[in-house]
Amino acid sequence: MDLLMIPGPVQLHERIIRAMARQMIGHRTKDFSEILEYCTEMLKKCFGTKHDVFIISGSGTAGMEAAVASFSKVRRITCIDNGKFGDRFVRIAQRYTEVDALRFEWGTSIDLDAVEMSLAEGSEAVAFVHNETSTGILNPAKEIAKIAKKYDALVIMDGITSVGGDEVKMDEWGIDVAIVGSQKCLGAPPGLCAVAVNERAWEFYNERCPFYLDLMAYRKKAKDLQTPYTPAIPLFFALHEALKIIEEEGLENRIRRHRTMAKAVREWAKALGLELFPKLNEYSAYSNTVTAIKMPNGITDRELRGGLREEYGILVSGGQEHLKGKIFRIGTMGNVGRREVIATLAGLEDVMRRKDVIEGSALDVAMEVLASKTQK
Amino acid sequence: MDLLMIPGPVQLHERIIRAMARQMIGHRTKDFSEILEYCTEMLKKCFGTKHDVFIISGSGTAGMEAAVASFSKVRRITCIDNGKFGDRFVRIAQRYTEVDALRFEWGTSIDLDAVEMSLAEGSEAVAFVHNETSTGILNPAKEIAKIAKKYDALVIMDGITSVGGDEVKMDEWGIDVAIVGSQKCLGAPPGLCAVAVNERAWEFYNERCPFYLDLMAYRKKAKDLQTPYTPAIPLFFALHEALKIIEEEGLENRIRRHRTMAKAVREWAKALGLELFPKLNEYSAYSNTVTAIKMPNGITDRELRGGLREEYGILVSGGQEHLKGKIFRIGTMGNVGRREVIATLAGLEDVMRRKDVIEGSALDVAMEVLASKTQK
Repeated sequence: MDLLMIPGPVQLHERIIRAMARQMIGHRTKDFSEILEYCTEMLKKCFGTKHDVFIISGSGTAGMEAAVASFSKVRRITCIDNGKFGDRFVRIAQRYTEVDALRFEWGTSIDLDAVEMSLAEGSEAVAFVHNETSTGILNPAKEIAKIAKKYDALVIMDGITSVGGDEVKMDEWGIDVAIVGSQKCLGAPPGLCAVAVNERAWEFYNERCPFYLDLMAYRKKAKDLQTPYTPAIPLFFALHEALKIIEEEGLENRIRRHRTMAKAVREWAKALGLELFPKLNEYSAYSNTVTAIKMPNGITDRELRGGLREEYGILVSGGQEHLKGKIFRIGTMGNVGRREVIATLAGLEDVMRRKDVIEGSALDVAMEVLASKTQK
Repeated sequence: MDLLMIPGPVQLHERIIRAMARQMIGHRTKDFSEILEYCTEMLKKCFGTKHDVFIISGSGTAGMEAAVASFSKVRRITCIDNGKFGDRFVRIAQRYTEVDALRFEWGTSIDLDAVEMSLAEGSEAVAFVHNETSTGILNPAKEIAKIAKKYDALVIMDGITSVGGDEVKMDEWGIDVAIVGSQKCLGAPPGLCAVAVNERAWEFYNERCPFYLDLMAYRKKAKDLQTPYTPAIPLFFALHEALKIIEEEGLENRIRRHRTMAKAVREWAKALGLELFPKLNEYSAYSNTVTAIKMPNGITDRELRGGLREEYGILVSGGQEHLKGKIFRIGTMGNVGRREVIATLAGLEDVMRRKDVIEGSALDVAMEVLASKTQK
């Protein structure tokens, strides 16, 4: 069984694996309602919101579409695209309304002036990806929301790979709608997503949105602590346990741990002379949950990732779409810690060293970061 | 833990529970592709089709919408409604095209002449529910498809609670698109659905359907034995095991077992003087996977179902919508057998007898059916 160091699905804590090994319960029972209630309340904390959170049985993409489609009563929506998931927002939104697609080269930072111009020209909403998993960049959520507020635009944020692992303060930042996926920083298996929605978003409610993803149906049933359609019960058992683990660790500690792990990977890469893929500007930052590194000369994607998998049983991700073979990505999400990170870096070093791609080792550099007091 | 004798989610076989207790695997790996391939091939047998089957991470409702929306390039669709799930087809289809809703009183049989008239008047598609779980009636799939063929109309069938438990011969009957849910006769946990699609259906493909439910995206990825979005991996582990159990039992045996269980419930009810809810005509039949019985006088829904749950730890379903309190429903789906059926009937008898609703017992009648050689 491979150790998953990809940006989701993540390795499961054994408590979460065990939580799924349960007989089914009726989904219209108090037993299920209690699980739903706990999950909803804990997710609110992860989103940094006092507003509603709805859990959908479906992948993160289902959550992105539920958010965009349910609130698509807008003349035009600005979709910010500097990676695969930004591009996904464009493709989803195009099925519902007019889209102003602000495209930036994948891996580069977004230009806030372009966002402002698009809103000034009449977009009534903006959708963006907080943590762009495909490129390892953290987009400036707070700044985007601030500009949007000037134009009274609805703000939809894909927080699929940030919520639960990096700082997200939805209410404080002025985000109206945000999405998280179960199999990322929350540490649960894939198959669930959640959408956080404030009151203002309902002004943009479009009743012609897809039936299954119609957040109004979720809102109505939430009053009875139920879901509108049969929920994926085993995944709720798992999410419940995953959120208990987050509660026990403490959200602040968890975020600090994620930042430390990502920092260790970055410092290690730099010490070895590897190049981080993202090109930052003053507003953007490296992702704290996934690190994208340029594929070094002298080794192929198959040799690097294939070698790591074969010899160490560790899976890291390649590039997506046109970045295939050009970058590799190390996920440091969920409930993995020091030992998984250092093992991954050690394995990568070994494979690269044997191809004469690097010289020496930088495990000491990584350990210095990992061994700091902020990391367990 | 309650024994679930509701029409889904069903009680899980312990092998299926154990199958979920596994570490995650990468969803773009050969390991996952092998699971997807086996599930797809086995589901084709359950649907009775040689055409494509796509598995979606979502409930049965997601499958209904994927089917209707992906193939909604029609002037008008006829939706047959003689129960809650027929009504759901109407509500879903209304979001995509013009709908001719043929409404029949819930629990009554559909009128084939009305279907023919609607098609003659220009509907280009018809959607119907094979096994109407809300009322316990089996609608005439073959006859509906036959009429539709006369008018070259697309035929979409909700087989959510029939596929895997009752006879479905999609290709032979002339069904173009059909849907199944994981947590019904297949015996797996809830959270997955599958849509079977023949080649003809693609003539009606609508590229403006919801992104997450766009079957074209599933079709493209199926070539690489992958799903377009991150699949709910633990549920695939479970479905894989559930389908292995079906293969071991043999589909014919499984259908015979379902029919025997439902027949035992019906004969028992009649022997006690209870009234079955469905009103049949020459084309319809009682469901072979769920039995709806009128609530007898002298007992409330809470007393009957609440008493059964409290004293026997068995859950049966009540009526939905306006049938609440007027009927109760016993699911006999998936991997339950003689012992679960007879325990349920014994418990129900006890609760009713104590309220003087019935006299004597009809467990012998049920046992005569259950003990027949066709039932293990």
